[in-house]
Amino acid sequence: MQKVNRAEKLALFGDHWHPRIVGELNGRHVKLAKILGESIWHQHDNEDELFLVVKGRFRMKYRDRQVWLEEGEILIVPRGVEHQPVAEEEAHILMFERASTLNTGNVQNDRTVAHLARI
Amino acid sequence: MQKVNRAEKLALFGDHWHPRIVGELNGRHVKLAKILGESIWHQHDNEDELFLVVKGRFRMKYRDRQVWLEEGEILIVPRGVEHQPVAEEEAHILMFERASTLNTGNVQNDRTVAHLARI
Repeated sequence: MQKVNRAEKLALFGDHWHPRIVGELNGRHVKLAKILGESIWHQHDNEDELFLVVKGRFRMKYRDRQVWLEEGEILIVPRGVEHQPVAEEEAHILMFERASTLNTGNVQNDRTVAHLARI
Repeated sequence: MQKVNRAEKLALFGDHWHPRIVGELNGRHVKLAKILGESIWHQHDNEDELFLVVKGRFRMKYRDRQVWLEEGEILIVPRGVEHQPVAEEEAHILMFERASTLNTGNVQNDRTVAHLARI
């Protein structure tokens, strides 16, 4: 029942591609992340994912096209769809997804963060 | 897989306390609403609710206190907690909740909007 100020939470960390949990409801997590450069191509077989741009902009690449996302815009990536987030400059994003969702989906490598911190 | 621009969606309607659905994922709805004045006291017995201020500010009143929410801030109201949103001036908010969640929770009256439009 405490409010979450996104800027205050984002000031608590600086690393990229490492989401933090800032809220939970109905078995879903609200996460904040800083991104810069390319993530990896991956998909989530059973989970849709929501992205909201808090600051900056980035591109969501699909295999056949890409979507530019500006500050305040929202994108829902349906389950089973391969995607790759790319940020030429640092962007801050909010994600909303199932508590079980892994950041790298079906791919597990050194980018995978299995246990996200709550801040 | 189309992005949602909140300002564009919000320009499509003008009435208050009547959320529109702008996205769906994992059985959850993303909604946008314009609010002005007082909503009613209500609670959701089985559903947590997320509020994010898109524009303006508003107060979430609980029975024993209140929380002021500024632009960009997030509040999660846990299930079972009575609350009353109040906006002295028009505010635009994003909500994230179960597809089954009624805007007036356990109270059904002329403020209840049982079938939300998708825009």
